[in-house]
Amino acid sequence: MTDKTSNQMWGGRFAAGPDAIMEAINASIGFDKRMAAQDIAGSRAHAAMLAATGIVSDSDASAMREGLLTVLSEIEGGKFQFSTALEDIHMNVEARLKDIIGEPAGRLHTGRSRNDQVATDFKLWVRDQLDAVDGALQALMRALLVQAEAGADWVMPGFTHLQVAQPVTWGHHMMAYVEMFARDLSRIRDARRRMNECPLGAAALAGTSFPIDRDMTANALGFDRPAANSLDAVSDRDFALEFLAAASICAMHLSRMAEELVIWSSAQFRFVALSDRFSTGSSIMPQKKNPDAAELIRAKIGRIFGANVALMTVMKGLPMAYSKDMQEDKEQVFDAADNIMLALAAMEGMVRDMSANVENLEAAAGSGFSTATDLADWLVRVLDMPFREAHHVTGSLVAMAEKKGCDLPDLSLEDMQSVHKNIREDVFDVLGVHNSVASRVSYGGTAPARVRAQITRWKEILA
Amino acid sequence: MTDKTSNQMWGGRFAAGPDAIMEAINASIGFDKRMAAQDIAGSRAHAAMLAATGIVSDSDASAMREGLLTVLSEIEGGKFQFSTALEDIHMNVEARLKDIIGEPAGRLHTGRSRNDQVATDFKLWVRDQLDAVDGALQALMRALLVQAEAGADWVMPGFTHLQVAQPVTWGHHMMAYVEMFARDLSRIRDARRRMNECPLGAAALAGTSFPIDRDMTANALGFDRPAANSLDAVSDRDFALEFLAAASICAMHLSRMAEELVIWSSAQFRFVALSDRFSTGSSIMPQKKNPDAAELIRAKIGRIFGANVALMTVMKGLPMAYSKDMQEDKEQVFDAADNIMLALAAMEGMVRDMSANVENLEAAAGSGFSTATDLADWLVRVLDMPFREAHHVTGSLVAMAEKKGCDLPDLSLEDMQSVHKNIREDVFDVLGVHNSVASRVSYGGTAPARVRAQITRWKEILA
Amino acid sequence: MTDKTSNQMWGGRFAAGPDAIMEAINASIGFDKRMAAQDIAGSRAHAAMLAATGIVSDSDASAMREGLLTVLSEIEGGKFQFSTALEDIHMNVEARLKDIIGEPAGRLHTGRSRNDQVATDFKLWVRDQLDAVDGALQALMRALLVQAEAGADWVMPGFTHLQVAQPVTWGHHMMAYVEMFARDLSRIRDARRRMNECPLGAAALAGTSFPIDRDMTANALGFDRPAANSLDAVSDRDFALEFLAAASICAMHLSRMAEELVIWSSAQFRFVALSDRFSTGSSIMPQKKNPDAAELIRAKIGRIFGANVALMTVMKGLPMAYSKDMQEDKEQVFDAADNIMLALAAMEGMVRDMSANVENLEAAAGSGFSTATDLADWLVRVLDMPFREAHHVTGSLVAMAEKKGCDLPDLSLEDMQSVHKNIREDVFDVLGVHNSVASRVSYGGTAPARVRAQITRWKEILA
Amino acid sequence: MTDKTSNQMWGGRFAAGPDAIMEAINASIGFDKRMAAQDIAGSRAHAAMLAATGIVSDSDASAMREGLLTVLSEIEGGKFQFSTALEDIHMNVEARLKDIIGEPAGRLHTGRSRNDQVATDFKLWVRDQLDAVDGALQALMRALLVQAEAGADWVMPGFTHLQVAQPVTWGHHMMAYVEMFARDLSRIRDARRRMNECPLGAAALAGTSFPIDRDMTANALGFDRPAANSLDAVSDRDFALEFLAAASICAMHLSRMAEELVIWSSAQFRFVALSDRFSTGSSIMPQKKNPDAAELIRAKIGRIFGANVALMTVMKGLPMAYSKDMQEDKEQVFDAADNIMLALAAMEGMVRDMSANVENLEAAAGSGFSTATDLADWLVRVLDMPFREAHHVTGSLVAMAEKKGCDLPDLSLEDMQSVHKNIREDVFDVLGVHNSVASRVSYGGTAPARVRAQITRWKEILA
Repeated sequence: MTDKTSNQMWGGRFAAGPDAIMEAINASIGFDKRMAAQDIAGSRAHAAMLAATGIVSDSDASAMREGLLTVLSEIEGGKFQFSTALEDIHMNVEARLKDIIGEPAGRLHTGRSRNDQVATDFKLWVRDQLDAVDGALQALMRALLVQAEAGADWVMPGFTHLQVAQPVTWGHHMMAYVEMFARDLSRIRDARRRMNECPLGAAALAGTSFPIDRDMTANALGFDRPAANSLDAVSDRDFALEFLAAASICAMHLSRMAEELVIWSSAQFRFVALSDRFSTGSSIMPQKKNPDAAELIRAKIGRIFGANVALMTVMKGLPMAYSKDMQEDKEQVFDAADNIMLALAAMEGMVRDMSANVENLEAAAGSGFSTATDLADWLVRVLDMPFREAHHVTGSLVAMAEKKGCDLPDLSLEDMQSVHKNIREDVFDVLGVHNSVASRVSYGGTAPARVRAQITRWKEILA
Repeated sequence: MTDKTSNQMWGGRFAAGPDAIMEAINASIGFDKRMAAQDIAGSRAHAAMLAATGIVSDSDASAMREGLLTVLSEIEGGKFQFSTALEDIHMNVEARLKDIIGEPAGRLHTGRSRNDQVATDFKLWVRDQLDAVDGALQALMRALLVQAEAGADWVMPGFTHLQVAQPVTWGHHMMAYVEMFARDLSRIRDARRRMNECPLGAAALAGTSFPIDRDMTANALGFDRPAANSLDAVSDRDFALEFLAAASICAMHLSRMAEELVIWSSAQFRFVALSDRFSTGSSIMPQKKNPDAAELIRAKIGRIFGANVALMTVMKGLPMAYSKDMQEDKEQVFDAADNIMLALAAMEGMVRDMSANVENLEAAAGSGFSTATDLADWLVRVLDMPFREAHHVTGSLVAMAEKKGCDLPDLSLEDMQSVHKNIREDVFDVLGVHNSVASRVSYGGTAPARVRAQITRWKEILA
Repeated sequence: MTDKTSNQMWGGRFAAGPDAIMEAINASIGFDKRMAAQDIAGSRAHAAMLAATGIVSDSDASAMREGLLTVLSEIEGGKFQFSTALEDIHMNVEARLKDIIGEPAGRLHTGRSRNDQVATDFKLWVRDQLDAVDGALQALMRALLVQAEAGADWVMPGFTHLQVAQPVTWGHHMMAYVEMFARDLSRIRDARRRMNECPLGAAALAGTSFPIDRDMTANALGFDRPAANSLDAVSDRDFALEFLAAASICAMHLSRMAEELVIWSSAQFRFVALSDRFSTGSSIMPQKKNPDAAELIRAKIGRIFGANVALMTVMKGLPMAYSKDMQEDKEQVFDAADNIMLALAAMEGMVRDMSANVENLEAAAGSGFSTATDLADWLVRVLDMPFREAHHVTGSLVAMAEKKGCDLPDLSLEDMQSVHKNIREDVFDVLGVHNSVASRVSYGGTAPARVRAQITRWKEILA
Repeated sequence: MTDKTSNQMWGGRFAAGPDAIMEAINASIGFDKRMAAQDIAGSRAHAAMLAATGIVSDSDASAMREGLLTVLSEIEGGKFQFSTALEDIHMNVEARLKDIIGEPAGRLHTGRSRNDQVATDFKLWVRDQLDAVDGALQALMRALLVQAEAGADWVMPGFTHLQVAQPVTWGHHMMAYVEMFARDLSRIRDARRRMNECPLGAAALAGTSFPIDRDMTANALGFDRPAANSLDAVSDRDFALEFLAAASICAMHLSRMAEELVIWSSAQFRFVALSDRFSTGSSIMPQKKNPDAAELIRAKIGRIFGANVALMTVMKGLPMAYSKDMQEDKEQVFDAADNIMLALAAMEGMVRDMSANVENLEAAAGSGFSTATDLADWLVRVLDMPFREAHHVTGSLVAMAEKKGCDLPDLSLEDMQSVHKNIREDVFDVLGVHNSVASRVSYGGTAPARVRAQITRWKEILA
């Protein structure tokens, strides 16, 4: 039944036979039109250089540069007619330029080829994305800083194995993500710096005999320098793979935070309330609030890392120089770029909107004798007890508290001294979740003062 | 420079703030409208069942079923207005149905929920693809059979490590791919059989208290039976993963054949000429014929297996039942399905069109003393020589031929007997590439008679 | 500092220069010795066939077969000296056989080659693993059935988005995994059936001129038939990829169940207590019980699917026939096989040992007005109210209950009738979590009776 | 038949029941003993710091530091008895230390925990690998420079789509790989710089109340600074993922070069002869030389990128802080590190040993009218002909040459002028492969002078 529809689709598509199949598999205009602005920027820089080096006349170059602006405005204005017969964005733009300015259009391609043109366009596009991700990461870090500052001393459970291990502060937890996203940002910037070499002028693969000035085009397009080997310039895509790898690691961090938000939003945890904007409800179950955005963010690592796998697989074992296989690079990068941006923006919004349930966090932080290690550390530090003995004494005190149905700070000094006579009043300074977190003053520790220092540091960096 | 364009895009998209971000990440209508036919088929079956079980009146059910056909024709006719505010295809269809038939539309959703509806639609869609791939694989196998039959006794090199190892026949080589694609076909059929259980009626996750008849809907939609556990029915996507895994293995086979076609088309090999339809030339280099389609087919494993990785990553560690993460399943499967179909169709076309260069194949088959093993086998078989000694004698004969600048069959019997006196005239029956392949008569071997038997077997199977 | 150690290691390894590097990258005996039993079984079958077809004498074949048994017992007894210089298991076995039986050992390789031998060994090994996984899956399903039977009517929350959606039964939840693992089992069996064709006798790639009987060896080794194309038989590894794909999907299911166990074990959920054997504690925090085994099972999808990616990448674009790249197939499959077995065994053990906290499950099931949909369904079913109106009425009643601080079943009939006068006493039959689950009697639904029927069905299947 | 062996293995392993399964899945000593040197270095730094801050006595710290050296020498000397019951390398070392120095060993763990200890060890190990890969990449680049210098003006075909496109120089081709591996090197160095923050002192997750000096331990272990957030320090593994991503991209480059070597070694290409050390021959086919090492290098991307997928999958969706899942990080990184080192070393050896077949390269470079674009460029450059017209004229000249069965430089000036009268004698300066490559003098072009300048630049950088 439904077969028919599907078969008709394929039938329709392939009814015209081999030529239709070849067009379907071969044409790239369906997706590479997203590089129109980059293509035109590259061509305008190339035209200016051709004039400066005397390869074309100034008037021809002016015509090209003006005409290209016209094409750009047509595309941006939605008035451009893309043609599949012209296969790709480069031919579409060039053909339209010819319509507009006539014969000089034919000189634009002097000293370059499709191969260096596509590499240049794609690098410009990826570089733009690196910049966009840079901005989105900073925005997310700022949102986390706001949360961290608000709750620098809110106490919550620090989990290992999803079991309460030790109390930490909300601010400390938020700042852990700031560190992760800061490394993501650093990776993005390294990738940008490394890939910022201009392929234009590498021509098909061997360079050219025209007296082109590659420094000039590289400079005009914001590249640090021209690429030093023309074969390499047209046939590698490691810059795209590095972008995908960095985006994947960032998506991994996002997936972890999203998982925490999903768990924290459950009725059993209730650590956090997400805003209505980033969740969906049930008309008849008022307490049900589905963390849709968090779940979708958690999932985005799939397609972003899937794109990484896809392009890595494509590039495996390809001999130099350009092979048509490489045409598969763009859709993967486009999709990954869109989705990492979307995930970062959604996470930033969620973080800004979410409100911690401070009471629940604190109550959970204190459960399960979570300050037992503080007690043991006190015994070691103050009474100079060996580690193993301190653990033994702590175990006895926890057993006592458990028997009495109370928490460690609720034991009396007498209770404590009945287990070990040297225990003194100031032991209580480390018991209780607030004392516990306040005591973790080692560099990088969870003590509010330490956390505030980190917040200050990051606010300055991101200022 | 290009930054601005990109930022404007994002700026434009997210200018409206969080709500726009949430809509962008949350809405699925942009892609799930491809399941419109399946959605409507499912709803029509459901409506008929609701009437048959007395849950809704016959007239209401008729109105629903008629109205749904109207919606379908609007969609197929390109007249349907999809709304992003209505989020997905299910709500778009339901809302339009309400416009058309009014109040009864509100009863269609009785005894089902979005979760089982989407699982049903998606299964129907995947099943259609399994059937389409089934057909495309058979078509490709038939094209290979035509080639195999034409060249059942053309001799070509059998390579190991891309080094000539032994002569084989063109037919034998083609039939190796028939075997591979036959296993792909078998995997596709197993996947179809396994996934053919109907989720409809699983409702949100727990089943329903309405007296629905799940056998009836399962039957109407061509399923073998209803799914036996409602939690499982709405929350697993292993059927999609199995489709992706089978498609990936098939794409691996395609990548191998495509690699061979690329290598065989090189000026150094010239084993095969691809048709102009599946390659592109150069206006000034008449002998350059780029095997574009082969390269693109070789690359398709990237995105298809990338989709497999993407969905596997999404599903990793998801608790039951439905989570929004699963919304990421469709685009991956859609893209993989489109591309495996495209790759199969292009490969079929290329195989049909290509012409083997029989002379070059045969010349290459005989180079490098490729029948030395035939000689060694003859010594073992006829003279009952132990393997190691036979190898030693063969080595001496090859060295002699190399010194004389001739091939093994060009040595005289005297030459041969000077190395080992028992060698007899009939040794020449196994030397030379045609004798060599003719002698490999073991089941599955490369002898033309064996190959023809396999061709006959497969022609009957595919008849 | 630590550099030195590391460099020394490499220095030591590569001090001998290129030869040591080549040996390190080339030799496979370090891992392929795991196929010793398969290699010997294959050789014994081959020897028997060589005698039966008169290619070798009966006495030679007897010597080979006896000698091979001796080699096997040496290997199993840990007395075999493996040699890296002999590169792989095949040469190690053959060389040792020659030590033991002398000259006849040289005739064993007649009519076969390393390529078909390794393909046969590897298929036998993979087939053994398919059988082992088959058994482990059945054991896990049986453990789930025990849990399901014990708690066929225990009520627990059915989650969507990790939010309580509707009550379900513990038995129903367990049986959902039985369905998933049953499909995994079915995939394993399909894979076994499909790959059960014998490569032995395909020789290097072209078949052989010796009058071998491939049916006989295929039969002796438990294969359904000999592989029909010698090129294909030695150069495809799709059987290994299919095993990895099936194991990956199974690992995905395991990761989901493991995630649930981790969450359910948290202090916030306390749905389940894992046994001490599969978790680790803290000497000073008695309530902390880390679900180590569950976490490790959750992680296993990583290396298993990683192996799938690895081998798929290796096979991408390899021309026929055998290429050395394929030597990378075994370690991936070995590691994946070990880990899927380990994960299945650990999950079985955990499931057998774990005890549900029935009280907590039931309390959680009733929270959040989880039976609101039951009420709405009752209004539709009994009062024939349109769906939208039923939702509106339900919303009002939930609001009333929320205001009163009670649950829906705690409202009086008068309360209810104040919202809609037609509501009758029997509405209470569907409220409350036990009534709710009991009412979901559609096929595949969560009603205890339905669940018990499924348990019975599966117990018969697995009997 | 073989089942039994396999089942016995599992039976034997799991006969002891759940405890054996838990030990098998849980213990890490089987692999993490590779971090022994790093573990001991970390502990020695920690002990020194504990004394310097007065947390332990100088004599205790001395005992620890001496004792740890003893343990290290036992391990390096192969005299250490590893115990699976002690689970991991950390407990094995600590237990042995206690044997040796007694009670003070119990104070070593003050102010740290297993979580920061393992993160520190693993970072030290990964950092060592980054340094090792750094060295191996430089060695490979130097080997390529030797080849490039030798053949700076050897002419070979520049391929696109594996079709001859334009002549290039051997030196240029080699230098393209120098550029690729230089970017790999740069990625490795960025990764090292980014990950060089010390986790030690982060303790379990919250920091510690002991007055530790994290700068001191960071400094002693060669870290740039202590990690700034204790939660992050123990629970992220992005440094390992970045190593795997960089190694994967490097492996991709290696796979491409390896593919070229395999193709170039074929009888049809004969562009290059690999040394016997990195290939294997056939005793009876003297011209067969299997490029085993190249094939294995080509395959290594599989397991290296597979490891990347594995760890990414493991980390997906893990909540903070440490979860046992992360124990799966090490084997993946160990295997990837071993294999990227092996692949780099083998490639370096192969490059050093291989000899180009200069004659074949040049002959192939000139085939197929590969200098047609040079002619067209000359028409544009010298005669100021528009591009399209130049192509038309070139096409006519190529057709003429093809008809005459000669190459372009073999046409007479009269022939040429019969097609376009303005063609002048100096057109012959750009025809012929040597003229062609000499003319491509644009920056990054293939002209020998350009290539030599790049070689000089890189020799200085790597000096």
